[in-house]
Amino acid sequence: MKIGIFDSGLGGLIMTKALVLALPEYDHAYLGDTANLPYGARSAEQVCELTTRCVDWLFREQDCALVVIACNTATIAALEYLQAEYLPANFPERCIVGIVAPTMEAVASGGFARVGLIATEGTVKSGVYERELRKLSPDTSVTSLATPLLVPLVENGGDKYAPAVIADYVEPLADVDALVLGCTHYPHYKKLFAQQLPKATIISQDEIIPASLSAYLDQHKDLEAKLSRGGKRFFGITDIAGSYLTQAERIFGGKLDVARVVISA
Amino acid sequence: MKIGIFDSGLGGLIMTKALVLALPEYDHAYLGDTANLPYGARSAEQVCELTTRCVDWLFREQDCALVVIACNTATIAALEYLQAEYLPANFPERCIVGIVAPTMEAVASGGFARVGLIATEGTVKSGVYERELRKLSPDTSVTSLATPLLVPLVENGGDKYAPAVIADYVEPLADVDALVLGCTHYPHYKKLFAQQLPKATIISQDEIIPASLSAYLDQHKDLEAKLSRGGKRFFGITDIAGSYLTQAERIFGGKLDVARVVISA
Repeated sequence: MKIGIFDSGLGGLIMTKALVLALPEYDHAYLGDTANLPYGARSAEQVCELTTRCVDWLFREQDCALVVIACNTATIAALEYLQAEYLPANFPERCIVGIVAPTMEAVASGGFARVGLIATEGTVKSGVYERELRKLSPDTSVTSLATPLLVPLVENGGDKYAPAVIADYVEPLADVDALVLGCTHYPHYKKLFAQQLPKATIISQDEIIPASLSAYLDQHKDLEAKLSRGGKRFFGITDIAGSYLTQAERIFGGKLDVARVVISA
Repeated sequence: MKIGIFDSGLGGLIMTKALVLALPEYDHAYLGDTANLPYGARSAEQVCELTTRCVDWLFREQDCALVVIACNTATIAALEYLQAEYLPANFPERCIVGIVAPTMEAVASGGFARVGLIATEGTVKSGVYERELRKLSPDTSVTSLATPLLVPLVENGGDKYAPAVIADYVEPLADVDALVLGCTHYPHYKKLFAQQLPKATIISQDEIIPASLSAYLDQHKDLEAKLSRGGKRFFGITDIAGSYLTQAERIFGGKLDVARVVISA
């Protein structure tokens, strides 16, 4: 059985690359719901429905034992429902993990006084990161900031403009001890954030999640035993406009064999 | 009866503002299919289905006598079907207009030798603008260019970076006599294009379409006679995440009362 990775679009490929590097022996299957992106602007209800449909496909068609929701918006809108209702009713022995809780655990364990969080508008408005962190680390102060231009820059070849955009965005965060990159696309600009905030620790999900998944598999030997070890990779997206292929290879940083996946409602 | 304006998202609000200013006495109803945006990445079949559903809602629920498809992607995918099949079968005395043909007529009447077209990747790839212009004006040479960062800049408050992005985009178009802004969002940056290409005529749909609709109503007195004159405005969107409201008001340039519209398949 495989490790599944789901994202609304192609940002999850940054995470997938990191996961594949950290856990190369397992088989991985990626699904990006490009037909319905961007999730960031959709209602929580609709995001939950779309996410469930895609996760279900990864379980049924790709025989995944475990699915990582590599998307903050989808984690926030759907993880609780998927874990509490969908899994027990459909696949009680499989597993779904999100990316918010492991990220906040990593932040809390750092003992920072002032933490900055940047994310999409939806993630910031949800207040989920702040609430989670307050539970784990009540003395940490958190400043959240929506940085909506970063995803389009990653997706449309706008790297040239990223230094100026990032310099402006992080201005109000000049005194943080740690900066959480709360969107799967943002690790693409990890170096730029580090240059702009040289004194801050950059908390990047492409480092946190592989480490946390690795620890999770160590603790869940029965699950780990079900995973097949062939190093196979599957990459599927739900709409395959030509630009996605170029974009996927740019984001992943290498040649990709991408399949079109049709998921019915 | 009202004038209806349809767009996949909120870009059509730029056009709506221009239409409302040009034809203030009539009642207008706007519908943005934010639940299904962006249309640019969908198949033509799906865009046609979604557009038909929304146009049908504008006729039935808002009592529109005329609907403007204020979206290049939807015009390209659905206008022919709507005019040739949907209207005769359902509302033979009402009317639907698109925005591609009037734009190309305006370009052709200008007698330009070299025309540049900028649009989304989908519009450029469709080749529709080039084909239409070749029919009307066979001696005009057309250079098309996808400029995918511009919509995100308009939608996410990125105006500050637009001068640099636009300067880079128009570099290969330095010698055109006219630049067609082939996306409903682009008139937002009309002045920047004019600054970058001072010798070119800027063909902007927020000027072309109100003028062409005004002329159309002059020629179709029976249709014009059906239009109610109260200056009423309705703004509806199919998904109402909070960011859309801010964005709608920024794009429209003023306070808006936006309703959520539920359209069943």
